[in-house]
Amino acid sequence: MKVGVVGAGLVGATAAYALTLRGSCSEIILTDQNGARARAEAQDIAHAAPVSHGARVGSGPLTDLRGSAVVIVAAGANQKPGESRLDLLQKNAAIFRELIPQVVAAAPGATLLIATNPVDVLTDLTARLAPGASVMGSGTVLDSARFRHLIAGHAGVDGTHVHGHVLGEHGDSEVLAWSTASVAGLPVADFMAARGREWTPEIRAQIDADTRGAAAQIIAGKHATYYGIGAALARITERVLGDRRGILTVSAPTPEFGVSLSLPRVVGRGGVLDTIPPALTGPERQQLERSAAVLRDALAALD
Amino acid sequence: MKVGVVGAGLVGATAAYALTLRGSCSEIILTDQNGARARAEAQDIAHAAPVSHGARVGSGPLTDLRGSAVVIVAAGANQKPGESRLDLLQKNAAIFRELIPQVVAAAPGATLLIATNPVDVLTDLTARLAPGASVMGSGTVLDSARFRHLIAGHAGVDGTHVHGHVLGEHGDSEVLAWSTASVAGLPVADFMAARGREWTPEIRAQIDADTRGAAAQIIAGKHATYYGIGAALARITERVLGDRRGILTVSAPTPEFGVSLSLPRVVGRGGVLDTIPPALTGPERQQLERSAAVLRDALAALD
Amino acid sequence: MKVGVVGAGLVGATAAYALTLRGSCSEIILTDQNGARARAEAQDIAHAAPVSHGARVGSGPLTDLRGSAVVIVAAGANQKPGESRLDLLQKNAAIFRELIPQVVAAAPGATLLIATNPVDVLTDLTARLAPGASVMGSGTVLDSARFRHLIAGHAGVDGTHVHGHVLGEHGDSEVLAWSTASVAGLPVADFMAARGREWTPEIRAQIDADTRGAAAQIIAGKHATYYGIGAALARITERVLGDRRGILTVSAPTPEFGVSLSLPRVVGRGGVLDTIPPALTGPERQQLERSAAVLRDALAALD
Amino acid sequence: MKVGVVGAGLVGATAAYALTLRGSCSEIILTDQNGARARAEAQDIAHAAPVSHGARVGSGPLTDLRGSAVVIVAAGANQKPGESRLDLLQKNAAIFRELIPQVVAAAPGATLLIATNPVDVLTDLTARLAPGASVMGSGTVLDSARFRHLIAGHAGVDGTHVHGHVLGEHGDSEVLAWSTASVAGLPVADFMAARGREWTPEIRAQIDADTRGAAAQIIAGKHATYYGIGAALARITERVLGDRRGILTVSAPTPEFGVSLSLPRVVGRGGVLDTIPPALTGPERQQLERSAAVLRDALAALD
Ligand SMILES: NC(=O)c1ccc[n+]([C@@H]2O[C@H](COP(=O)([O-])OP(=O)(O)OC[C@H]3O[C@@H](n4cnc5c(N)ncnc54)[C@H](O)[C@@H]3O)[C@@H](O)[C@H]2O)c1
Ligand SMILES: NC(=O)c1ccc[n+]([C@@H]2O[C@H](COP(=O)([O-])OP(=O)(O)OC[C@H]3O[C@@H](n4cnc5c(N)ncnc54)[C@H](O)[C@@H]3O)[C@@H](O)[C@H]2O)c1
Ligand SMILES: NC(=O)c1ccc[n+]([C@@H]2O[C@H](COP(=O)([O-])OP(=O)(O)OC[C@H]3O[C@@H](n4cnc5c(N)ncnc54)[C@H](O)[C@@H]3O)[C@@H](O)[C@H]2O)c1
Ligand SMILES: NC(=O)c1ccc[n+]([C@@H]2O[C@H](COP(=O)([O-])OP(=O)(O)OC[C@H]3O[C@@H](n4cnc5c(N)ncnc54)[C@H](O)[C@@H]3O)[C@@H](O)[C@H]2O)c1
Repeated sequence: MKVGVVGAGLVGATAAYALTLRGSCSEIILTDQNGARARAEAQDIAHAAPVSHGARVGSGPLTDLRGSAVVIVAAGANQKPGESRLDLLQKNAAIFRELIPQVVAAAPGATLLIATNPVDVLTDLTARLAPGASVMGSGTVLDSARFRHLIAGHAGVDGTHVHGHVLGEHGDSEVLAWSTASVAGLPVADFMAARGREWTPEIRAQIDADTRGAAAQIIAGKHATYYGIGAALARITERVLGDRRGILTVSAPTPEFGVSLSLPRVVGRGGVLDTIPPALTGPERQQLERSAAVLRDALAALD
Repeated sequence: MKVGVVGAGLVGATAAYALTLRGSCSEIILTDQNGARARAEAQDIAHAAPVSHGARVGSGPLTDLRGSAVVIVAAGANQKPGESRLDLLQKNAAIFRELIPQVVAAAPGATLLIATNPVDVLTDLTARLAPGASVMGSGTVLDSARFRHLIAGHAGVDGTHVHGHVLGEHGDSEVLAWSTASVAGLPVADFMAARGREWTPEIRAQIDADTRGAAAQIIAGKHATYYGIGAALARITERVLGDRRGILTVSAPTPEFGVSLSLPRVVGRGGVLDTIPPALTGPERQQLERSAAVLRDALAALD
Repeated sequence: MKVGVVGAGLVGATAAYALTLRGSCSEIILTDQNGARARAEAQDIAHAAPVSHGARVGSGPLTDLRGSAVVIVAAGANQKPGESRLDLLQKNAAIFRELIPQVVAAAPGATLLIATNPVDVLTDLTARLAPGASVMGSGTVLDSARFRHLIAGHAGVDGTHVHGHVLGEHGDSEVLAWSTASVAGLPVADFMAARGREWTPEIRAQIDADTRGAAAQIIAGKHATYYGIGAALARITERVLGDRRGILTVSAPTPEFGVSLSLPRVVGRGGVLDTIPPALTGPERQQLERSAAVLRDALAALD
Repeated sequence: MKVGVVGAGLVGATAAYALTLRGSCSEIILTDQNGARARAEAQDIAHAAPVSHGARVGSGPLTDLRGSAVVIVAAGANQKPGESRLDLLQKNAAIFRELIPQVVAAAPGATLLIATNPVDVLTDLTARLAPGASVMGSGTVLDSARFRHLIAGHAGVDGTHVHGHVLGEHGDSEVLAWSTASVAGLPVADFMAARGREWTPEIRAQIDADTRGAAAQIIAGKHATYYGIGAALARITERVLGDRRGILTVSAPTPEFGVSLSLPRVVGRGGVLDTIPPALTGPERQQLERSAAVLRDALAALD
């Protein structure tokens, strides 16, 4: 199966590297307005061949996306110092208006997986630009992974046993749905008690802050984030390629909220197969409403 | 890392095959009173070399277990027609009384992972025969996997998102702790409703019956079970080798119940690191007590 | 991607287990005239779910093969004591005459991968019964793996660095093409010298005998062989699914020899993409001719 | 098993990412003079947890290397415009003189795997600074992978079937030992003929140039190389951790040449277990001598 990556920057190339090392697909094509960079990234990744499970990694123009089952879109800019989020949105929206129609023309049946920020608004924009296509954004898949990883660290257990959703916007207004969090099926506090681990409001607040601040902390230390998001994009892609029907908090157009945002969704062949509204507390529900409102405002600014 | 397998029958050899295909360790040694069989199984598995991640698979006497980090014990008989469970227990207990001291002498630091049935009683017996050693039984790890797999099938989602424990005896008195079951963090019924799947007492009863009856159904069709248990043994072994701290319903001596039985336990280097008592309903708790009583009676019959 | 398995016996089920543990495909369907066995095997394998990368494993009638990219055929009998090879051939040929048209009707685009013995003659028969279909047999893929594994053992290196082909019939007349054998690019004797390992005509003869006798040795110890062949079938299947263009000594109709036999072939999407005649010595070439003659006689006996 | 990474820059962090995605070890510790960067890289990688096979990724001071079986050293500078190779060597040698004794003090039993350039000279320096320790450099492992990848591309086959060594210095004087190159056991030209692929001196020269120029081409397009080398470091590390006895062209002190350089070597637990002198043509041998001379001069410049 073939996967396309549009935007061979740090995020797009890392996703391609993760797909390669995991043997998720048999062919990857990187495309970028900077053709030399796409070529160099593809070559660098291709040299991992001895551990690549035979994936063929190449680069080319947008038309080479033909036949892709999934196209990851990570093209665009990052926020520059002094630049407002709205400036960034306008800039990346302009890129998408030009790119998306060409992507759809080249790979009409592909599921489009958006990573570029602001990811929720660009997922909405993509859905408009590609009516009828399967579209989703990486949303809070990475944030949910960070949330669970931090809880697992405190619990002293493997992260696969921790459950918990981050919902809404991938950004400041995101909702850490603590009421959905559990370890090995127990409420977090009960698990910590059973395991004899301290569990205080301060620790919870710290996890909350570290989940929200993870990207900023990493950017402070290394100027960008890409390993976590690259792995998340590979994971979402695999769910589609293998029709895995995994549950992931991807972003997708949500009529109830009038905007794309993250909710737990069943992801398989063809993209989002279903959405599973979580059981939230009243305050969580209000936070989610507020997060949706933030996104609706941003979307409105686009028009 | 080295893994030993004592009893190179269907279960032991399948566990070795699963370890080999998964690249779980670098060396596997199979040992059996039937040396020709152990040699043949090792050779057959070794011919999977092109997909084996370099694991070396060999066979030899018990003394070759030396240096194993984990020793899987699957030696013994299966229940014969007309034979009572107690007869089987006496037979396999006799084998263990002879085997276990030799295993401990050969691989003093190893974690012993018991698969032979009746697994809970033999785990207790092993703990007595190997005082101070790390001992656990595969217990209901496989039953929990079957339980989750059946729920996942109805829910139409990947099994990794289903939680739920089977507790107590690996056998007729085992407890399907429905109160611990959830899909993507939601109670099963709520998830089914959200996903628009039918969920009736009949379906639940069917899953209950199919979980309990899985081994019997498989044995009716193919005379033995080994793929599921082989994979379960590989998975438990990996948790120990990699110090993964996964939560698995392995069987282990449990002072509170005076017997070895399955509860959710944290498994890592050195075996069982912790036990996490689940939050059960009153009736579930009573079932668990009854299951423990069944096991205590069996254990008493040993003395 | 979907893989079908016809004949859910030891070989077919082990291939399905290997595909499941390796995450080679997203769906596997087992079919057997003994429907209860196919169901039981599928269930046993499905219980490996926690380590299965989400593959769905089921069973059903031949019509359920629909949509398979590869169909592995391992249905048929093994040689019984007192039964001649020709008797076995007639028996399995009868099964194939009934089965193959139904397989092709159910999964018209699939690559058919034959494992049933005598595999070369049945590959030929299948090619006749399914004109236009992509057909190959597991041939000497397993024998080549055994050959390399034995050389690697003597060399004290990982088997991936050993090259060497077994050619011709999968059976007594097979050709161990020693002239094609090398370790890390060196002739075997040179490598052994460089590594300070003994390398005598006796050792070579022993490897020769052990390669040829491997199946018989294993059958003496455990009554059947299935782990090695199961892994080989998974490996061949992966080459097709992922269009890997691996080089494997599969069996396929070979006009030059007027029969199906094993030669190094490029295997990718659509099956055999190319055949690479190896550079043989005169005596090896003569052995290969004789092996082909043996197969032509067997084939003639079919008509 | 634990792996340490000293120098959490692009190369060190990518190696850690590759180890994580491949499940090569259970614990990774990143250390860097820029502690904030090491922390940020470790966090970013740790967020790949859902696909990380449970590896724990952290950061800390050099003393946290304690218990590592392998320590990858990728600390140091890259060549700056206007800076001579000798300047770079002096700079990185100064770093090593300070670092290596601390690494050895923290992880006395570890195999040291050097990646920093110029990798051969620094491997020599490390061997002097850590007498008695197991030391090797990534050498031409990556160059050999590139060489094979390019040949495989022309041959239209999976790279695992291509053999061929790049020897000597990891740098301008490196030797593409064409006489050692083969595809599926055939000389390259013979394979191309058999497969009907063009094979001219021009194509060979292009592969030669592209292998030598790969790093420069990639750097032109993306300013650094790290995916290929990261995968190579993970692969070498796995050979040591799993005692795989793989054959890799790592760099190691070579008395015959009076310097560290790359030759095919058997790599397993404890590092380099053996060196296998390849059968070179006269001119190749001369090139290798010249390459060694270049390295001896560089090494002399250090003293
Ligand atoms: N969703 C998440 O969780 C998440 C995490 C990290 C980064 N991101 C976002 O991903 C995006 C990419 O980040 P990055 O670090 O890879 O940036 P980068 O600057 O490294 O790469 C962006 C690439 O996009 C290319 N590009 C720009 N316009 C293009 C066009 N019209 N056509 C084709 N290619 C074009 C650029 O040439 C560049 O190679 C950013 O918007 C960033 O905010 C999202
Ligand atoms: N825990 C589970 O969930 C589970 C599942 C399936 C089977 N089992 C149990 O696993 C055990 C093995 O089942 P199997 O199907 O592999 O049986 P099997 O008959 O195929 O293999 C048993 C092997 O044990 C060997 N053995 C017997 N006594 C020995 C001794 N003293 N020393 C060394 N080896 C000895 C036999 O030679 C034989 O090879 C049985 O007790 C079975 O009930 C447990
Ligand atoms: N190619 C190799 O290297 C290799 C290696 C080992 C075995 N084999 C061959 O594989 C074949 C299978 O061996 P096994 O050990 O799995 O045998 P087995 O007896 O365990 O299984 C054979 C299965 O085929 C089924 N079957 C028979 N007729 C059928 C029909 N008409 N339709 C559907 N299913 C039918 C049987 O019900 C049975 O389940 C044998 O011919 C054996 O010689 C080949
Ligand atoms: N062997 C190969 O095939 C190969 C390939 C690519 C790069 N390299 C080499 O790898 C090295 C690293 O390259 P990179 O791209 O990661 O560079 P980088 O600048 O991204 O990272 C280097 C890191 O080393 C750290 N460092 C410097 N001095 C240190 C000290 N005294 N203690 C601890 N950490 C220290 C820096 O803080 C920095 O984080 C370079 O020498 C480069 O030439 C080798």
